[in-house]
Amino acid sequence: MKVALLGLGSVGQGIASMVLKKGLGITITGLADSKSGIIDAKGINIEEILVRKRGGNPAGDTSVSAMDVVQNADYDVLVEVTPTNISTGEPARTHITSALRKGRHVVTSNKGPIALHHRELLTLADTHHVSLRYEATVCGAIPIIHILEHGLLGNQVKALHGIMNGTCNFILTRMSEEGLSYEQALAEAREMGYAEADPSYDVKGIDPAIKLVILANAIWNLGVTLHEVEITGIDQITPEALRLAGEDDATIRLIAEAIPARQLLRVSPRILPRSHPLVVKGTLNAVTLETDMAGSLTFIGKGAGSIETASAIIGDILFIREQYDGCS
Amino acid sequence: MKVALLGLGSVGQGIASMVLKKGLGITITGLADSKSGIIDAKGINIEEILVRKRGGNPAGDTSVSAMDVVQNADYDVLVEVTPTNISTGEPARTHITSALRKGRHVVTSNKGPIALHHRELLTLADTHHVSLRYEATVCGAIPIIHILEHGLLGNQVKALHGIMNGTCNFILTRMSEEGLSYEQALAEAREMGYAEADPSYDVKGIDPAIKLVILANAIWNLGVTLHEVEITGIDQITPEALRLAGEDDATIRLIAEAIPARQLLRVSPRILPRSHPLVVKGTLNAVTLETDMAGSLTFIGKGAGSIETASAIIGDILFIREQYDGCS
Repeated sequence: MKVALLGLGSVGQGIASMVLKKGLGITITGLADSKSGIIDAKGINIEEILVRKRGGNPAGDTSVSAMDVVQNADYDVLVEVTPTNISTGEPARTHITSALRKGRHVVTSNKGPIALHHRELLTLADTHHVSLRYEATVCGAIPIIHILEHGLLGNQVKALHGIMNGTCNFILTRMSEEGLSYEQALAEAREMGYAEADPSYDVKGIDPAIKLVILANAIWNLGVTLHEVEITGIDQITPEALRLAGEDDATIRLIAEAIPARQLLRVSPRILPRSHPLVVKGTLNAVTLETDMAGSLTFIGKGAGSIETASAIIGDILFIREQYDGCS
Repeated sequence: MKVALLGLGSVGQGIASMVLKKGLGITITGLADSKSGIIDAKGINIEEILVRKRGGNPAGDTSVSAMDVVQNADYDVLVEVTPTNISTGEPARTHITSALRKGRHVVTSNKGPIALHHRELLTLADTHHVSLRYEATVCGAIPIIHILEHGLLGNQVKALHGIMNGTCNFILTRMSEEGLSYEQALAEAREMGYAEADPSYDVKGIDPAIKLVILANAIWNLGVTLHEVEITGIDQITPEALRLAGEDDATIRLIAEAIPARQLLRVSPRILPRSHPLVVKGTLNAVTLETDMAGSLTFIGKGAGSIETASAIIGDILFIREQYDGCS
């Protein structure tokens, strides 16, 4: 399986290091970071690239762009793991559409293009008889898209509830367990590297709302957008609210939920009994699906991390190989 | 998709009623209960059969056997949901091998043949270029086999821990929450229909050990048998033990676990913190997989029930259709 890899941040480096370590029948024949690119049909020396990146150097030749790699490398699957732009989805959207038009499969962790252009991109993939997979865009290492696509065939999913942002869940866990204020817990999340310098994308609930849009469109193909999600973040939650919930053996978590029959698409802090399956600790993610035959199913796992995200990307690459090999 | 259905107990009736209700592109062309059979290439009138069964009558013609259906019906997939025989796997094993030898796919909820003859049956399916699927043998509605086969490609599963018996989990939940004795909680489980008149198959840990064998062989293809599982049941657990665990904010659950690197294959009561993801309530099942890339993942759902088991069977039938249709 020949792969072209766009993006060499923590996820891209995670993928490269796993391919280097495990082999997996994957050869990287094209590669680009934000400043450079490299194309080698015989397979790029990953070890050398990782050493160069860790030394702060560009991965390849500064005269080669990501688009050059998309257009000129010899690959079966484009792996798009550049940073997300949630307003335009660019430049990932252009990379993805170009690869699909060339009849190449695409695997991405990039939420922007999938949240903004889900239907358009999947239609384009269909037209060109290739796959577009995006397991890595939602809930980290939990194979929720695989479960929805293949594990529950025949079921109707009636509702989805989940904890889809590890940063918020970490902050709420610390406030609940240690009685910290929001500001103290946020400072701790920053120290641990879980929160950005500007944490608003997480704590205002934008990130889980984007994941909710991706999952709702994956399940029901409704074509919903971020604007349709009712969003309340966690930045107004007080230690008092958590203490009161605790007195009833309950706690507060930031829950993303979609219930089409009630036209509900919402991210908001909710009070849940401590024994509720969705009440997970720290940076974990958890998703519950309500189905007509399989009943209620909950899936829990790490919501972020370079190796966990690499796991989702690699799972998608190998699933594509299996699907297309199984036929020959 | 033409299906021959062997077994019309609660699972068989669950499948038939879901096919009747939802269609799903499935036609039942052969069918047998313990006393009779019916073959109709144009599709059997399911509604009529269900009425007959509920009236206590045989489903079909008493001169037609299950083996006649296997040999003479016109079907793509044999669905084997007759009662489990854990000593010999019969008659299910013979039904399954006969169908595979005829080049037909098989989907089963029958633990006996899968726990006893996993490798032999899968090899036979391979030889005849057909699928043998058994999602319904383990953990009810949780699509754990799908997740293992397709959702985590590229990962190495290092360990498996789970609550795989709803009856034991119900008894332990009631003992823990209400301070009941083992005998009181068992009596309650019987009243609710969760425990058999002879509950030893569940409470001695045999049932979860069989499921552990099936999962261990599915993951690692070790060819292990029930005799290799170290088994301790829950029938010696006292309310005092649960009270003591409770004082440390912990509880006791019957955990099935497999860790090949430590040659560990065990079912035994274990003390777990109440906040542990595996600590689920009532008749729920839960499974944790420890993997090298995706980290630790936990899956929670209903472990039994006719519609939940039908969900797993129907999911397998439709997955086979998708796999083989995707190629044409």
